[in-house]
Amino acid sequence: MKPAGEDDILSIVDRHFPRVHPSLLLGRGDDCAVLRPSGPLAVSTDIFVEDSHFRRRYFTPCDIGFKALAVNLSDIGAAGARPTGFSIGLTLTGREDAAWLDAFCEGMAALSRRFDLCVSGGDLSRSALLNVCITAWGELPAGLPQGLRRGVAKEGDLVILLGDIGLARLGLAVLEQTLSDPDASAAARVKALWPEACSRHLRPQPLVREGALLGRFAVEHDAGERLGLMDVSDGLARDLPRLLASPGSGLGAELFLPEQSLHSEVRTYAESRGLDAAAFALEGGEDYALACTCPQALWPDLRTCLQNASIRPLVLGQVRKGPFFLNGKLVVMKGFDHFGA
Amino acid sequence: MKPAGEDDILSIVDRHFPRVHPSLLLGRGDDCAVLRPSGPLAVSTDIFVEDSHFRRRYFTPCDIGFKALAVNLSDIGAAGARPTGFSIGLTLTGREDAAWLDAFCEGMAALSRRFDLCVSGGDLSRSALLNVCITAWGELPAGLPQGLRRGVAKEGDLVILLGDIGLARLGLAVLEQTLSDPDASAAARVKALWPEACSRHLRPQPLVREGALLGRFAVEHDAGERLGLMDVSDGLARDLPRLLASPGSGLGAELFLPEQSLHSEVRTYAESRGLDAAAFALEGGEDYALACTCPQALWPDLRTCLQNASIRPLVLGQVRKGPFFLNGKLVVMKGFDHFGA
Repeated sequence: MKPAGEDDILSIVDRHFPRVHPSLLLGRGDDCAVLRPSGPLAVSTDIFVEDSHFRRRYFTPCDIGFKALAVNLSDIGAAGARPTGFSIGLTLTGREDAAWLDAFCEGMAALSRRFDLCVSGGDLSRSALLNVCITAWGELPAGLPQGLRRGVAKEGDLVILLGDIGLARLGLAVLEQTLSDPDASAAARVKALWPEACSRHLRPQPLVREGALLGRFAVEHDAGERLGLMDVSDGLARDLPRLLASPGSGLGAELFLPEQSLHSEVRTYAESRGLDAAAFALEGGEDYALACTCPQALWPDLRTCLQNASIRPLVLGQVRKGPFFLNGKLVVMKGFDHFGA
Repeated sequence: MKPAGEDDILSIVDRHFPRVHPSLLLGRGDDCAVLRPSGPLAVSTDIFVEDSHFRRRYFTPCDIGFKALAVNLSDIGAAGARPTGFSIGLTLTGREDAAWLDAFCEGMAALSRRFDLCVSGGDLSRSALLNVCITAWGELPAGLPQGLRRGVAKEGDLVILLGDIGLARLGLAVLEQTLSDPDASAAARVKALWPEACSRHLRPQPLVREGALLGRFAVEHDAGERLGLMDVSDGLARDLPRLLASPGSGLGAELFLPEQSLHSEVRTYAESRGLDAAAFALEGGEDYALACTCPQALWPDLRTCLQNASIRPLVLGQVRKGPFFLNGKLVVMKGFDHFGA
């Protein structure tokens, strides 16, 4: 269990991430890498830090590597872009050995290979807690120079959801409960009991292809200024107001989230605890679903387009002036704040 | 001293860094920002972390913000690029109040304004120690698609140094000594005694204009494949072998670093402690000087070109097959490793 030195770490990184890539004019190993952008570049930075975003007790090193990148790629997809690469700011604690780092890189590389990304480089440092800061970028289709944005919705637009919500919140809740359990196999038991929820919390699948598909759809339908898109990272309750927010718009929505549209694990959990499953799902963060606002006239074409996506869209409701309603009841939209009280 | 909440932090960021910038097609506030690259983009990531790269005991919040960005811009300059923007992954501890964050942003913004950079966005998180992970990018002059690189030197090339070395090491040494001093004014006393050394450690001035000047020079002289450049972040002793390294080249150098070429604070300090001042400077990291390898035939033109730079170049010596010599003595080149024993 010898901690890995800097050269060991770099050679492990090299085993998992090629230095040569069509989107790079110069790869890792110099002061800078050089990207070869073909046009506008969508850029996003996300931090993934121990005991704030993940626990070592139930995240494997492979999960940590995977999710640190996944949350970032989700943002690239939510701009309607196709991710092409990323850089890694990796702060280790000095306790990670070569096997740990190999697994961490493998988790990240699995996702990187899936979307054919390059790693342009990064930096290594040391601190008390593990901290992974990734900056990712992606190329937008020609004709969509600002990507798909928030704040373009108008009254009457449909609110569309791609992907389940509430699963990651459930996964987090049941995995956190194992922390106080002295039985070392508690996490494994919970993972077996709530497989989809735990998997969603540990390894969310970013809807990258779906986002890029929406980007191309917007270009083909000249709808870049009217098709709104964002990823649901902090929960719909917090993110939906952001998706609708344009200064002074005063927009809310009437949302319908029928029980049967929720994942069975979410329904089972809510029922066993006497919770309102829809409200539970609405406040659940980290599912990395995509939320979209779409003018009604575009919806038939969009629905047809999405038949090529692996995920069925759900029409959540409609944009309205005023507050938010969920299943006919007034609902206060709130979410998660790292710095909140 | 109320800790700043997420909205407070974002409004402080907005006060210091404009959202609109010519190099941005879409600014902060969405899932992604969108860059408008005019060609190849040099990219670099650097982590700046409490108790590893800086101490709160003697770095003001303004120093921390300044240096976190400075080290990164130094890399962009060392590629021969002109920096245009950056993103910030900021992990706070929850103890930083609005005044602290305002000073931190002001330090960073001072440098950002000097080079007319945009902040595309970033992420906020919380952990036990402050961690600033910046990814910066810059534009290369047309005709220099890979930037200025390491590993292009040949036997006989000159080794040129731009900027003093040894100062930051001295600053670190004297500032670290104040940690065990119960007198709260110890750091102020040391800063007054060794002003340039402390300033170099706390607020290194990245040689961004000089790097970009070298980039343009290389294009004008069709020398992109033969002019080597890197910034000296870990000390010449560690960085020079990297500058010369091309696989199997077996290149070393004969270096001359006369006492009088060193900064007077470095000379005074070395003399008072019976140290070899040149060896002390050679092993000193974090000065963010630029080290360059240049074919002899190019040197007269390069020297003329550098008359426009604010810093006088020093011809350090010549590239040779074999080991390194400093002032006629064999020298083992070694440097700093965060993960070293």
